[in-house]
Amino acid sequence: MKNLIIASTSTVHGSAPLSYLLDKLSLFYKDTEEILFIPYARPGGITHDEYTAAVSKPFNSIGKNVRGVHTFENPAQAIANAKGLFTGGGNTFLLVSQLYANEVMQPLREAIFNGTPYFGTSAGSNICGLTMQTTNDMPIIYPPSFKTLGVIPFNINPHYLDPMEGSTHMGETRETRIKEFHKFNTLPVVGIREGSWIRVKGDNIRLEGPHSARIFEQDKTPYELETGSEIIFP
Amino acid sequence: MKNLIIASTSTVHGSAPLSYLLDKLSLFYKDTEEILFIPYARPGGITHDEYTAAVSKPFNSIGKNVRGVHTFENPAQAIANAKGLFTGGGNTFLLVSQLYANEVMQPLREAIFNGTPYFGTSAGSNICGLTMQTTNDMPIIYPPSFKTLGVIPFNINPHYLDPMEGSTHMGETRETRIKEFHKFNTLPVVGIREGSWIRVKGDNIRLEGPHSARIFEQDKTPYELETGSEIIFP
Repeated sequence: MKNLIIASTSTVHGSAPLSYLLDKLSLFYKDTEEILFIPYARPGGITHDEYTAAVSKPFNSIGKNVRGVHTFENPAQAIANAKGLFTGGGNTFLLVSQLYANEVMQPLREAIFNGTPYFGTSAGSNICGLTMQTTNDMPIIYPPSFKTLGVIPFNINPHYLDPMEGSTHMGETRETRIKEFHKFNTLPVVGIREGSWIRVKGDNIRLEGPHSARIFEQDKTPYELETGSEIIFP
Repeated sequence: MKNLIIASTSTVHGSAPLSYLLDKLSLFYKDTEEILFIPYARPGGITHDEYTAAVSKPFNSIGKNVRGVHTFENPAQAIANAKGLFTGGGNTFLLVSQLYANEVMQPLREAIFNGTPYFGTSAGSNICGLTMQTTNDMPIIYPPSFKTLGVIPFNINPHYLDPMEGSTHMGETRETRIKEFHKFNTLPVVGIREGSWIRVKGDNIRLEGPHSARIFEQDKTPYELETGSEIIFP
């Protein structure tokens, strides 16, 4: 049974990384003491070791060890053997490139379908969708494909940001960008605001956390989905 | 002799499209009455015809006709024959995909090196760099390559946006994104603020308009370049 927490962000403003989710994560990873961490997205370009050390801190505080997948000779095998998985944020183009380069996209998908608890934040959440095409990230590296895990039947826009009232900036709003996506793609997009997450248990997909989500469907006016609601598309 | 205006945006807040540049454009296109427009970036997903009609208005006001490259049976030939070129903004992934699909990336590069005046805004400016990897756009379509025209020896970040003081949003700032780019790429990046542009005359490349630009070089602290300055990298 699929078992995922797909979070908009690792960190909410003014609090320590992951602190807003630690209680949930303690329960989520109750059957394992070791979490296999996928550090490929390298936020700010930090190294895999630095990133693994950084995320170890909050997890240690709930009695979990973290080991980076980059420390294994066979990352696909490490993923298949893991009892708990976490993919952190950073750059989605880099993350997807590295998942393909290390030949772990398919093993990761299989582990998730086999029921290994998977927690993702930001880029690590983006890849749960069918494609990475609704990322906010800069294309710093050319991935072999935009296809991602496809463990949920829609795409994610993490760090969803409402249009800013009174902004004089002429760059596209997030909503405009997602509308452009829907000129060429049919997949629904769920904009998750910072501090909220999607909880997947088998076929049940539910929005959790303090905020509503913004839902974008092709040829429909975007609408709000209240937290606690199931996310279902016809 | 290369002859380009590479603008951050078509429209500055509170004024009509292109109005801030019309005097310059009148002079820039003085040797032609017809401008060949490349509408492939389709802002907001509007059609090629709609986009061409929209940009015709400001150009008509300075006595220029606009014809979309999509109306020609042989777009490469149309580009080679053009006396003036304009590529508008929208989505850079779409623009680059269409330039490759229509086999005009190389003809466009040749026309620019042959001295055809080229004006670009936003996505149309982004493609003047060596790659599109410092675009702000959403990857709504998978292009066959991130390589672009390479008619200037650096990359562009249009609509350059300074970090917002007091922002509580945890998504990456523009500066953070460009720093990530420089973890994997050596090309300098010029962040052009809205309302400013780069003027290329042969090998002379100069920043013009009301704002300074933000310059990003690998392993260097970003710095400001005053308007009127030449843009040179060692």
